[in-house]
Amino acid sequence: MAQKPSIPKGTRDFGALEMARRNYIFDTIRSVFALYGFSQIETPAMENISTLMGKYGEEGDKLLFRIQNSGEKATQAPEKGLRYDLTVPFARYVVQHREELSFPFKRYQIQPVWRADRPQKGRYREFYQCDVDVIGSDSLVGELELIQIVEEVYRRLGIRVCLHINNRKVLAGIAEVIGAPDKMVDITVAIDKLDKIGVEAVNQELVERGLSNEAVAALQPILNLSGTTAEKLTALRTILANSEVGLKGVDELEEVFRLVGETSLNIELDLCLARGLNYYTGAIFEVKALDAQIGSITGGGRYDNLTGIFGMPGVSGVGISFGADRIYDVLTELNLFPEALQSGTKVLFTTFGQNELTMALTWAKALRQEGIAVEVYPEPTKMKRQMTYADQKSIPWVAIIGGDELAQQKVMLKNMTSGEQRLVALDELKQILR
Amino acid sequence: MAQKPSIPKGTRDFGALEMARRNYIFDTIRSVFALYGFSQIETPAMENISTLMGKYGEEGDKLLFRIQNSGEKATQAPEKGLRYDLTVPFARYVVQHREELSFPFKRYQIQPVWRADRPQKGRYREFYQCDVDVIGSDSLVGELELIQIVEEVYRRLGIRVCLHINNRKVLAGIAEVIGAPDKMVDITVAIDKLDKIGVEAVNQELVERGLSNEAVAALQPILNLSGTTAEKLTALRTILANSEVGLKGVDELEEVFRLVGETSLNIELDLCLARGLNYYTGAIFEVKALDAQIGSITGGGRYDNLTGIFGMPGVSGVGISFGADRIYDVLTELNLFPEALQSGTKVLFTTFGQNELTMALTWAKALRQEGIAVEVYPEPTKMKRQMTYADQKSIPWVAIIGGDELAQQKVMLKNMTSGEQRLVALDELKQILR
Repeated sequence: MAQKPSIPKGTRDFGALEMARRNYIFDTIRSVFALYGFSQIETPAMENISTLMGKYGEEGDKLLFRIQNSGEKATQAPEKGLRYDLTVPFARYVVQHREELSFPFKRYQIQPVWRADRPQKGRYREFYQCDVDVIGSDSLVGELELIQIVEEVYRRLGIRVCLHINNRKVLAGIAEVIGAPDKMVDITVAIDKLDKIGVEAVNQELVERGLSNEAVAALQPILNLSGTTAEKLTALRTILANSEVGLKGVDELEEVFRLVGETSLNIELDLCLARGLNYYTGAIFEVKALDAQIGSITGGGRYDNLTGIFGMPGVSGVGISFGADRIYDVLTELNLFPEALQSGTKVLFTTFGQNELTMALTWAKALRQEGIAVEVYPEPTKMKRQMTYADQKSIPWVAIIGGDELAQQKVMLKNMTSGEQRLVALDELKQILR
Repeated sequence: MAQKPSIPKGTRDFGALEMARRNYIFDTIRSVFALYGFSQIETPAMENISTLMGKYGEEGDKLLFRIQNSGEKATQAPEKGLRYDLTVPFARYVVQHREELSFPFKRYQIQPVWRADRPQKGRYREFYQCDVDVIGSDSLVGELELIQIVEEVYRRLGIRVCLHINNRKVLAGIAEVIGAPDKMVDITVAIDKLDKIGVEAVNQELVERGLSNEAVAALQPILNLSGTTAEKLTALRTILANSEVGLKGVDELEEVFRLVGETSLNIELDLCLARGLNYYTGAIFEVKALDAQIGSITGGGRYDNLTGIFGMPGVSGVGISFGADRIYDVLTELNLFPEALQSGTKVLFTTFGQNELTMALTWAKALRQEGIAVEVYPEPTKMKRQMTYADQKSIPWVAIIGGDELAQQKVMLKNMTSGEQRLVALDELKQILR
């Protein structure tokens, strides 16, 4: 036999069980999106190379997969590239279709993206992203709805999470009031290590990053911030009293917490959260699973200029992205996938001869009319092989038809979990399987 | 403003309504597949170029999209290509994963494919295929189940169809008994024109294609075949009496008709059907919509050597492919899409002030807990603009909260179809929307 065929490194096949589990995740997310009136869109796998280039930094440009028509000579520069994320195609979509869209435009998109990254554990060259955004409104109701969506999605999936929230304006305000407005990113990166390396090491790093001793001293009240969210916000308001942008950020955070109100979701005001800092202009979100060490499973924030790159400035939006692969890993690790996912088929009819097969097909038709998923083993073969088939597909019931059953027009129904079996007529079988 | 961005020719964006309609088609098909125990799989968009090359003929090779890593020099030959169909990746999948699979393996796959075809009306460079196959069994129960799936899918979609069925072995038998065993394809192509050009022109074409006068004479009983399916099969059995393969084909057709039994589906034995003749070895299927002039909307057949190209010979299977784009066009032309697809959102709450917004958000939360899809217009703006939003998204109800409603803790509920409106409390609203 020839060498086994294979697939490109960093890509994956998804078999029946993996697909059932992935569909469970996507269907759960989708059904929550629908409750909030978000509509699905899809964009092409390939975009014009001019749409993609320069949007992801120099590093990102290098990771684009370029597409050659077969007609093109190899030396011609490819004009198309594979989608690298869902954000740039979404911005392109909004600008291209702005006349047809109703704003605020609430969309979600679940599609694969491709990156010519070095493949490694947990990092793939093809993976799905799942983005939800509302664009064309600066109302904080957007932030509220995304938080409620996070709460409901993870409640349905059974994953305990903490939602970390920050605000870019607060970070800008902090940099401003300590007299280092150009050091916002350095400050945030250093603060981020507080838990791991302690206050003194953080202060040292800040000095190394070019902050004056006065600025580091002025930062201390922020490093020592503690207490409830309300207490933290009150303290921040005092610290940021002289920063207009900082106070605006505190206002926004306060309003989001007020809108959310009573909730079963853990929400933590986290000044260290700096995700996508060059991009976000208001709220910044990150969701972590409490019972798994896996990092962020959802993240996003408020942006003010997504569509500016395509010539449509000043459109505010807010969005988050669910990390399907990581959610999959958390559900697997915590054993949270519903068992029934493994196979949709409720019962397998065995086949030992022509007349038995005819009876099985008749019964299968009747059961399917009731919406019950049924398989008929398609050809007479050994009992053991047919049982193994049911077992491998995790089919919970097997209906055996031999000569006696055929004569009585009943089946010997075997429960594949308990091993028990008993003779049942068609009506009984319907009741058991419904 | 800069020039509007665009997408590569031959590709499409799918907006909210198109996606809702496409999901309706795929969900309908998927739910029927599930009743028969078919499992979904997915394969990567990119395959090794060696997996794809030489599988689609010389013309197909030219239509492959090749992928370049950005790291690669333009002069290097790309090692990967985009999926051209779902058949070759499926064959590759079966061979690569044969140790893990339970045979017969019943799978379906719904994913886009890419072809560097010249774009034209109804022909795209990116389009979805929707394939369902059972592989690893030569039982005609496979043919039966696919026919039942066709019947149920189109019953659910409301499209009246005719399923044309033929058998490659019958065609081979015909060529054999008229003494032209190497002319099977020529004969089929000529017969196919019978309705359009008449018997005499067909006979002339057959002579031009190299058939002897004796062979053409011997073919006449087949051209004149008429009557019920049973009558046609009886006549064929006589005509093909001296062809072993031909009689085997008649046996198979007869058995498929017997297995199908009573059915509401129009099934026509159609000896002109020659779809994929170089590929299929038994049954050949094609489904046409009766009320739309659009050609085939589903097709497929039995094959015996799908996996042979990857070194795993002698595995029989049968499969069909649903043409999603054409089904979409038929449903549009015949106005068969359910109206409720347009928007999932049941009610929009208007927003005219802070207190009204707070009440709307509280009510929205309560309704969503009942599984009702709700939107809250996120910021105070003119009534007209909010109504237009509801209208454009085809939201059937608008709940208006002004000062009076706020005081009474009721909403003025407007039916967007009839224009009627009345004051309702939360419990009433739940009942109306459920």
